[in-house]
Amino acid sequence: MNKIKILSEVDIKKILNMNIAINAVESAYKQKSDNKGEVWPLVFYEYEHNVFDLDIRSGNLDDSNAYGLKLISYNENNPKVGLNKVNATSLVCDSKTGQPIALLNAAPITSYRTGASAGIGAKYLARKDSKNLLVVGSGNIAIYSIVATLITMPCIEKVIICNPKNYNSLLNKIDNIKVDINNLLVECNLELKATIVCSNDIETSVKESDIIITATPSEKPLIKSEWVKEGTHFSCMGACMEGKQEIDELIFSKAKVYADDINQCIKSGESQTAFKNNIISNFNGEIGDVILNKENGRELEEDITIFDSTGLFIQDLATSLEILNNSNGIGIEVKL
Amino acid sequence: MNKIKILSEVDIKKILNMNIAINAVESAYKQKSDNKGEVWPLVFYEYEHNVFDLDIRSGNLDDSNAYGLKLISYNENNPKVGLNKVNATSLVCDSKTGQPIALLNAAPITSYRTGASAGIGAKYLARKDSKNLLVVGSGNIAIYSIVATLITMPCIEKVIICNPKNYNSLLNKIDNIKVDINNLLVECNLELKATIVCSNDIETSVKESDIIITATPSEKPLIKSEWVKEGTHFSCMGACMEGKQEIDELIFSKAKVYADDINQCIKSGESQTAFKNNIISNFNGEIGDVILNKENGRELEEDITIFDSTGLFIQDLATSLEILNNSNGIGIEVKL
Repeated sequence: MNKIKILSEVDIKKILNMNIAINAVESAYKQKSDNKGEVWPLVFYEYEHNVFDLDIRSGNLDDSNAYGLKLISYNENNPKVGLNKVNATSLVCDSKTGQPIALLNAAPITSYRTGASAGIGAKYLARKDSKNLLVVGSGNIAIYSIVATLITMPCIEKVIICNPKNYNSLLNKIDNIKVDINNLLVECNLELKATIVCSNDIETSVKESDIIITATPSEKPLIKSEWVKEGTHFSCMGACMEGKQEIDELIFSKAKVYADDINQCIKSGESQTAFKNNIISNFNGEIGDVILNKENGRELEEDITIFDSTGLFIQDLATSLEILNNSNGIGIEVKL
Repeated sequence: MNKIKILSEVDIKKILNMNIAINAVESAYKQKSDNKGEVWPLVFYEYEHNVFDLDIRSGNLDDSNAYGLKLISYNENNPKVGLNKVNATSLVCDSKTGQPIALLNAAPITSYRTGASAGIGAKYLARKDSKNLLVVGSGNIAIYSIVATLITMPCIEKVIICNPKNYNSLLNKIDNIKVDINNLLVECNLELKATIVCSNDIETSVKESDIIITATPSEKPLIKSEWVKEGTHFSCMGACMEGKQEIDELIFSKAKVYADDINQCIKSGESQTAFKNNIISNFNGEIGDVILNKENGRELEEDITIFDSTGLFIQDLATSLEILNNSNGIGIEVKL
């Protein structure tokens, strides 16, 4: 068998930045819209609910002659034994022959590609004059989503971070969050210009925001429909499994709703409750259709738009391929 | 992240032999019967029917504290560009933490573990005095199945190999097949004692055989029901996808039928047509239940028995773990 390239977390951090991720994820969404990128069925297994689970995501990108998979696990108990909660590994293969070409630590890739999709949702669906960005959640995905949205929406002046479950924890780590955001912007030769504030009042924060990103593991709505002003855009990042929900399903009745993958969103996305309760019966399109102007996105200033991002392996695959293209002299090659 | 062990085809061939595979696969079947080994949903994708396809198999073994997956592809065109038809890669993880612990070239493992299951089927279901073994098919799986069955059934005196599609090709390679069989036996400190013959008359061969192993990619039955004598055992290895069939579905009406995994066999095993045509409505059990004496296997000399082996990732996982246990000083460790 041929040699495969092994890229560790350290290797990947030398190569990847948010601009690369945004371009790669856009390319994946576009290939999907053109039927050149497929999302294969998700395998999900739970050792203990909300404590230890894993999933296998897979798919292909025809323009890139590649397919592959990602095995990602989340273990809440890992920090007790000095390990990361998330372990993620991707295998990339050549779709002309089937040969494996690379093994990558997919944990950093997951953070970047997930953040990128939040930013892409805002880029194509939010009002161009959006000034206030609210991010609900203060973990890794929140940080990467803020960075991507600051890049795609340079008009943003204020970022409000709200952690409805634990405000004190947010206050304790806000300085580190600002440093992380700045470092990720510096990787793209940018700097943090927007003001970053913490909020303990989610209702007021929702009311003053133009773009809202949700990035929590919540299983019940954190944002009520009556708080949402006209013109708001939502990028919903947290719901990626059955039973998850971050925003009131009634918001869907007055919104234009876009999926990363329609089937996956109906089953496991933020839209699942709206579908179950017959609040909506279809999407306005997939994000790739909007990027390629096959479907209309926002049409009026007062439209409420929702991007339901469940996360697709093709985002990881496109990002992994960009990393591989830029990996000369980095990583090791192993005969398999 | 921790270090993972990388084991190449060459590394694995230094460690693995058929005895290791038989013991590992039996252990996997037993854990499954005790609800300690699970088979997760199969992902299958076809680039071109019967030319290029791939699947992702996954699952866990609780007693071994492990889970993982195998990505395996088959590309009929690969030899034209000097590559193997089969590419297979397994990722093994620690089921206490989720950390990946090893990446293995799963092509040799697949051959051994598949052969092992044919031999285990015979061991637990064939008549103890079986003398003649017929193997339909002459590819890799046929060779490994012969070796495993010679090990589990040392009573076998004659092996008849039949390639109904291409007898000349079989004649051309029979000397190599004998060498391969002998080499695989020598790995286990055994030698080839049985006679190996080629047959171009499948009907007569079926009529004189006690054990029949089918290992072809056939999509229609090669063995007619009226040829099958009382007391015959079948280990059906070839059917692992929808649409495949090697033996007349009418044989099922007079046989005791065992699955490696009931759900997978109904969907994609040799039993699929018998189920679709309502010839049978359930199995006599899974092979693990027979090994553990939870279900009866053969009861009478004249019973016809069928083991439908679709192939389970837990067979690969158990074998991979045995390889890892014996890999001191072999392979390389890489920080991921």
